[in-house]
Amino acid sequence: MRIDIITCLPKLLESPFSHSILQRAQDKGLVEVVVHDLRQWATNKQKQLDDYAYGGGAGMVMMIEPIDRCISELKKDREYDEVIYMTPDGERLEQGIANQLSLKKNIIILCGHYKGVDERVREAFVTREISIGDYVLSGGELAAAVLSDAIIRLIPGVLSDETSALTDSFQDNLLAPPVYTRPAEYKGMKVPEVLLSGHQQKIEDWRAQKSIERTKDRRPDLLEE
Amino acid sequence: MRIDIITCLPKLLESPFSHSILQRAQDKGLVEVVVHDLRQWATNKQKQLDDYAYGGGAGMVMMIEPIDRCISELKKDREYDEVIYMTPDGERLEQGIANQLSLKKNIIILCGHYKGVDERVREAFVTREISIGDYVLSGGELAAAVLSDAIIRLIPGVLSDETSALTDSFQDNLLAPPVYTRPAEYKGMKVPEVLLSGHQQKIEDWRAQKSIERTKDRRPDLLEE
Repeated sequence: MRIDIITCLPKLLESPFSHSILQRAQDKGLVEVVVHDLRQWATNKQKQLDDYAYGGGAGMVMMIEPIDRCISELKKDREYDEVIYMTPDGERLEQGIANQLSLKKNIIILCGHYKGVDERVREAFVTREISIGDYVLSGGELAAAVLSDAIIRLIPGVLSDETSALTDSFQDNLLAPPVYTRPAEYKGMKVPEVLLSGHQQKIEDWRAQKSIERTKDRRPDLLEE
Repeated sequence: MRIDIITCLPKLLESPFSHSILQRAQDKGLVEVVVHDLRQWATNKQKQLDDYAYGGGAGMVMMIEPIDRCISELKKDREYDEVIYMTPDGERLEQGIANQLSLKKNIIILCGHYKGVDERVREAFVTREISIGDYVLSGGELAAAVLSDAIIRLIPGVLSDETSALTDSFQDNLLAPPVYTRPAEYKGMKVPEVLLSGHQQKIEDWRAQKSIERTKDRRPDLLEE
């Protein structure tokens, strides 16, 4: 899989992609992440990427031409399954969407900044608009990193133990059960007996029950779906 | 405001906090963000932070003792309004929560990794559990960066034009209207006439109408609240 991220702040994305799982996935050749500095495609001497909004008001708007030039250049080299724009008014990211996107071959992720991109970018070039949640960020960069992380960890071979992703929250509309590790007692707080019992069936039953209880308590909406 | 982030992967958070708005907010002294390497509080020679889950199964669990030591040390120096744990089964982050947290003085954000933290950490030290959305990430670091960004940009003085944050999506349960910038025509695609009219009242009316239309179309649930 290849992910091309287009941003006016490429440096902001340096560390998230060069550590831990995202780095390992690239080292193993399971995913290629290429971050593009939009400034390369600026058209004037000042390398301008944004301008005032037509109609006035606070906040700058990212111009269409550099984005058009960048996307066109990328499309010359390969076909893209999706050109995704990160925006708070997009479709809300859920685990199912991450699962779906992890099966794609090439995707472009466009990051907005300031007030976002010129609407004509969305109409002409973007195939899918995704929001990571109902809140506003200073730009799409962290959202792009979040989306990439959610996708990349699902690519077979990325997590060292593949069963790990399947027992995560949301994969079966249930929240994960509580987890414990050593020591068995810490300042008077004990690990539930059953987990120390070595009785695998009882442990599985306990975990299933806790998953359901936690979901009922915290996210009853997931059970209604 | 001060935000202390506790993580086993401090380097992952380097670039998001050292660019753009998050950097400027720190430079202006409006927020202090301190990232703590949990490894400093490890208790054995191997600097171990995680261990196998009791009861077996895939994925490692973060141990209670280093986290307890780190949080205790921080609490010696100041009082914290919240100790927030980033977890997919937490309360879902929404703009209202970001608004609320932006008024706090000191908060700790604890990042999980692998399968998460020992449940006793959540019971004993955590005052609030927050999820940035219904999907699973490889760790809480990006979630902590997202939460910090959502909060910090709301602190007065952080955005250069304060009216900018108030016209964002979600601040009034409406999505933002489309935005446009120069050129007025690009490859046959034109900016709506009204935005070029200079007639401020008509522009405001058009924007209000587009906000409502877009919300009805994309997120009717916001209008029902």
